[in-house]
Amino acid sequence: MSTETPLLLVLDLIGTFAFALNGALVALRATRLDIFGVVTVGMLTGLGGGVIRDILLDSLPPATFVDWRYLAVAAGGGAIAFALSPALERFTMPITVADAVGLSVFAVLAAYKALNLEFGVLQAVIVGTITAVGGGTIRDMAIGQVPTVFRSELYAIPAMIGAATAALLYGLGVQNIAATLGAAAVCFVIRMLGVRFDLNAPRPPWQR
Amino acid sequence: MSTETPLLLVLDLIGTFAFALNGALVALRATRLDIFGVVTVGMLTGLGGGVIRDILLDSLPPATFVDWRYLAVAAGGGAIAFALSPALERFTMPITVADAVGLSVFAVLAAYKALNLEFGVLQAVIVGTITAVGGGTIRDMAIGQVPTVFRSELYAIPAMIGAATAALLYGLGVQNIAATLGAAAVCFVIRMLGVRFDLNAPRPPWQR
Amino acid sequence: MSTETPLLLVLDLIGTFAFALNGALVALRATRLDIFGVVTVGMLTGLGGGVIRDILLDSLPPATFVDWRYLAVAAGGGAIAFALSPALERFTMPITVADAVGLSVFAVLAAYKALNLEFGVLQAVIVGTITAVGGGTIRDMAIGQVPTVFRSELYAIPAMIGAATAALLYGLGVQNIAATLGAAAVCFVIRMLGVRFDLNAPRPPWQR
Repeated sequence: MSTETPLLLVLDLIGTFAFALNGALVALRATRLDIFGVVTVGMLTGLGGGVIRDILLDSLPPATFVDWRYLAVAAGGGAIAFALSPALERFTMPITVADAVGLSVFAVLAAYKALNLEFGVLQAVIVGTITAVGGGTIRDMAIGQVPTVFRSELYAIPAMIGAATAALLYGLGVQNIAATLGAAAVCFVIRMLGVRFDLNAPRPPWQR
Repeated sequence: MSTETPLLLVLDLIGTFAFALNGALVALRATRLDIFGVVTVGMLTGLGGGVIRDILLDSLPPATFVDWRYLAVAAGGGAIAFALSPALERFTMPITVADAVGLSVFAVLAAYKALNLEFGVLQAVIVGTITAVGGGTIRDMAIGQVPTVFRSELYAIPAMIGAATAALLYGLGVQNIAATLGAAAVCFVIRMLGVRFDLNAPRPPWQR
Repeated sequence: MSTETPLLLVLDLIGTFAFALNGALVALRATRLDIFGVVTVGMLTGLGGGVIRDILLDSLPPATFVDWRYLAVAAGGGAIAFALSPALERFTMPITVADAVGLSVFAVLAAYKALNLEFGVLQAVIVGTITAVGGGTIRDMAIGQVPTVFRSELYAIPAMIGAATAALLYGLGVQNIAATLGAAAVCFVIRMLGVRFDLNAPRPPWQR
């Protein structure tokens, strides 16, 4: 399934917006930026994963660069963070939920894109995960921090499981909107359980 | 217009050299580097924006990688910084001027490249801006700093205005050397006014 | 010569494994990471240089992404580092030797790849060097450090000499397994002499 389906397009744009907004807010908490920096970090967070996906899948120019709706939505997320950052701190939970929607939809749609381009299951899972977490990784590198996704929380692992679920369904010959939403829901639920119960990916055994 | 025009080629090479020289000097002020590090950071600064441009425009291999003159000029800028760094500190103003030439020419030529490849106006402005500021952004990330262009000065906004001017002229059917130089001059003048009057892009309203 | 030759494939995989293992160990020494971070940093170190190579050579999708053996070997190196990091500190020398094998093979095979794709000698040397040191550079940027290869040791220069040796032999019409191993041996010996005698690339003259 792809973003040619209106519902998936809307979810993908919501995810892009949430990534950009959340990415810009994270950056503003960590360092001082001007308007160009905030909007750019927002756009890097919202669009960066998709650019890496399309490099790895030899699918240039990147879909999110060609389609002005992604550019507009990502720039809008950054601009709103610029204007309203302190006021937005009250909306942490809705932003976290929208960010989890983005994580889920990015992972699953990227996995399907890889499979439809005849890449293998391993590649589909990797590219799904990278698409979901790549934007945030670039954001953290740009603001001089070790990426959060490398250190704590349960963020990449839900994406990996969501992409693997999509690959499994694809292998079973199932590729429709219900399968896409189902695989995304698997990622979403695990991510939100991680937020709710403050779960982290395992640390090295000798550090415990 | 493209770098097939001798005058534009020369300006583009001057910009590449200035970016590499200035990028290497910035890096040497910020951290300790060996000869490989200085030359590499210079080359990343001079050539990095063009590589990102050609990834986004699906125009690989990157033009600045294929053409040995760009490689040589960028490596030369880095090597001169390596050998002469303290002596060059007296030439801050000419280096800043040459850097502004690079900013202007990179932004305008990249915008024209995007438009000639049938990308839209929004894409042309974004790719013009990224080409102009991408090298310096990579440089700052490589030396562990939040990119200057995200934080202060008037650097990306002149590039954006220069690229938008080029797109406007292109939309009016004007694409010749005078238009190219005119759009670049718009960027150059705004950038130098920013330097002269120490202007910065706006900070978030709630930080003022 | 390419990795279609079994011996070169094995050496290339050893290099990928060593890069991933060593990269993950370096990251674990520098900062706290979870399992996803350790494995990802290992994979970035082992595979990142090859991805940059294939972007610059317009040879997407990246060979190391398409071939599951590279993905598996790199992920394995990261996972072993995650599980056994403190115990592995006793094996510094074998890891350094295997890392030098990777440096040598990556540089020489990438140079041959560039030449066989009809890029010039300068491009072959640059792409050989970038392939050899690019993964470690991305790793250091991801963990918030100025890349070691920009600062100290004799690491990039052996790669450059190995790639240049390959280009020289290619120019003489020699491209067989003996030439490939010979060029790699030149890089390997210089790298190990650098380790043995604690050599560094030159620092700026005015810093001495």
